[in-house]
Amino acid sequence: MPIDQDRLWGRLEALSRITDPDRPWTRRSFTPRFLEGRDWLAAQFRAVGLAVSIDAGGNLIGRREGSEQGLKPILVGSHSDTVPSGGRYDGMLGLLAALEVAQALEEDGVRLRHPLEIVDFLAEEPSEFVNLSCIGSRAMSGALTAEQLAFRRADGTSLHDAIAYVGGRPDAIAAEARAPGSIAAYVEVHIEQGRVLEKNAIPLGIVTDIVGIRRERITVSGRADHSGATPMPLRRDALVGAARLIETAYRQALAMAELPRPLVATFGKIEVSPNAANAVPGEAVLTLEVRSGDEAAVRAFGETLMRSVAPELESLGVTATAEPISHVAPTACADAVRTAIADTARALGLATRDLPSGAGHDGVFVSRLGPVGMIFTPCRDGRSHAPEEDMEPGQAHDGARALGGAVRMLDERLD
Amino acid sequence: MPIDQDRLWGRLEALSRITDPDRPWTRRSFTPRFLEGRDWLAAQFRAVGLAVSIDAGGNLIGRREGSEQGLKPILVGSHSDTVPSGGRYDGMLGLLAALEVAQALEEDGVRLRHPLEIVDFLAEEPSEFVNLSCIGSRAMSGALTAEQLAFRRADGTSLHDAIAYVGGRPDAIAAEARAPGSIAAYVEVHIEQGRVLEKNAIPLGIVTDIVGIRRERITVSGRADHSGATPMPLRRDALVGAARLIETAYRQALAMAELPRPLVATFGKIEVSPNAANAVPGEAVLTLEVRSGDEAAVRAFGETLMRSVAPELESLGVTATAEPISHVAPTACADAVRTAIADTARALGLATRDLPSGAGHDGVFVSRLGPVGMIFTPCRDGRSHAPEEDMEPGQAHDGARALGGAVRMLDERLD
Repeated sequence: MPIDQDRLWGRLEALSRITDPDRPWTRRSFTPRFLEGRDWLAAQFRAVGLAVSIDAGGNLIGRREGSEQGLKPILVGSHSDTVPSGGRYDGMLGLLAALEVAQALEEDGVRLRHPLEIVDFLAEEPSEFVNLSCIGSRAMSGALTAEQLAFRRADGTSLHDAIAYVGGRPDAIAAEARAPGSIAAYVEVHIEQGRVLEKNAIPLGIVTDIVGIRRERITVSGRADHSGATPMPLRRDALVGAARLIETAYRQALAMAELPRPLVATFGKIEVSPNAANAVPGEAVLTLEVRSGDEAAVRAFGETLMRSVAPELESLGVTATAEPISHVAPTACADAVRTAIADTARALGLATRDLPSGAGHDGVFVSRLGPVGMIFTPCRDGRSHAPEEDMEPGQAHDGARALGGAVRMLDERLD
Repeated sequence: MPIDQDRLWGRLEALSRITDPDRPWTRRSFTPRFLEGRDWLAAQFRAVGLAVSIDAGGNLIGRREGSEQGLKPILVGSHSDTVPSGGRYDGMLGLLAALEVAQALEEDGVRLRHPLEIVDFLAEEPSEFVNLSCIGSRAMSGALTAEQLAFRRADGTSLHDAIAYVGGRPDAIAAEARAPGSIAAYVEVHIEQGRVLEKNAIPLGIVTDIVGIRRERITVSGRADHSGATPMPLRRDALVGAARLIETAYRQALAMAELPRPLVATFGKIEVSPNAANAVPGEAVLTLEVRSGDEAAVRAFGETLMRSVAPELESLGVTATAEPISHVAPTACADAVRTAIADTARALGLATRDLPSGAGHDGVFVSRLGPVGMIFTPCRDGRSHAPEEDMEPGQAHDGARALGGAVRMLDERLD
């Protein structure tokens, strides 16, 4: 297949230039800038012969019919929205690699057996609507609730109305949601947003799972006291208790970092009160986040942690309680898709590495409709969600070649 | 001496009622409410025969002449300002115990050899002027700088003008500052603001030192990364590094808690960035505060800490740097004053305990003028700088009796 590196790279540059000029690279969902990007995309879709539509949930879809009647579509794509001051490749790579594959098929005169749909999923990134992400893939898979449709952003606009603004039909979302088993497969190319591939000089990652993510709020309670008037033995310092938790979690997660399905645990957020130089901290509220493809490990981590530090916290005179904030189960990537990617990479002579996706993606919701898989490419120094996000044209090219090959293999193998 | 418990307690209640009504107990320096309190105080001073004046630095002084010409004055007192939403005894106890002593001397027909001056030091608590505290005692001892006089609060008023507002003569402060050796002694009664006396059921504390206080800003630098995309072994987590510092400081300070001059070390303040649930912390900025009567120990603590955690931080891939924010040397209480308090307590049959003052007090500056000492009384559960600050009338009475006895002994013993 004639996957054209320069054309792919040129399109990545062209789309990235559609940005809020004062804060590159920004193309937030539900804004005029977002619609400007979609107009450009729709024109590109049409130019390579795709039938363009917007579904009820506001997803932009370019469709190429297949040669056999009655086969389910193969979906490819990603998203065109960005975080504020984000990068040029997160989302765009998957979308434009899919477009390049469609154009290469067209130029090669190849008609697939299955219909091919390139999807620009609406608002994959956390949106202005209560930070809800993956709005388009939730809608397509029937997971977008009436409660979520009623979410409002700061100016009072509801998500319902915002979906209509981008050309969706919010009142038809429930009726038009696709059914489980309604797609042949979904494959997405994405930058890794981490350093594993770059560090190991491996061009392609085959995603094993989109990790489960559990967040718990841990409150360490001691006693706020005047730092000068409270001798060390009389203290009940919540921050010292928090330090024990942070260190213990780090050690325990480090020991689970190399399991078949690795785990990460992060205390990313801490608020101490009174948080004054001359006050013994009376309370520390921390957010524990655990991610892994191993659902049982994700569920058990916090409880094990709390149990193991309990005696130390008691000796410090502080207490700690944990309450779950959120829990998303892992999504396993389908063997059929993983195998197609691996076989393609072998044929292309490209090394691969299995790895989990530590970040959430639309595949979590699309997996309700059929088998999903993801191809990761390296990116520079793991930077993402920042203007410094970067990659080489050749790395984008490898991703698109792997996508094209995997789509053709899946087209042959699946019914 | 006929120290009257009910009269003392009644005055404490009367002065506390002069408060901002919406946030008891608040009588902030340089406000109309503060002047209202001082008017009440000045009237009380006059009623017991004291000559009332306001010095150049804005301190309210009630003076009782001594019987011998040429002797330096014995100073007693404290401060009538409060922190916002503070307590009813911090400052007021020392001031009204001193007034009670003056009245008891008057009623007993006792004329001391030395002049007795009851001083309401201006703005002992952190003020609206760049948080400067001990403004009156700084002025009296020649330590208030021209730079500090130029400090402005939010409304643009300078400290210079604010001192004039309370009746001081800011342009005369330097000329009228008292000279080293110009006072016979200074004795202040104060609530402990801690739990040592209450826990041990001891009615009187004899302050050994007003501790030295050193603050350092410690910056732990790692690398901010996406929590999902960064396996544990690739992380450089600044908060894990900070946790090592916090735990190590706690253990090292605990080992120094019972030395002849105990030490406390506190990480009271921490700011983490990005401080998001899904981000490996890239930086943690902590404030280390060390207090002790042992100047060398205060100076050495931070450096020893940094040296002992350095290998662990290196293994975590993070670095830490420390920069001093402030350093105040300890103030030793004078043996003559400590002995007078101890002898008085023995005569009164009251148990005592030597202990440092972990909080700063006007005595730090008054010590430039002559020997100083402090008497601590218990307070409920160590609470201070809060509306819950509380004590028993009998505890206030014990403090005033000890002050009265110590003043009489010093009057006999000093020249």
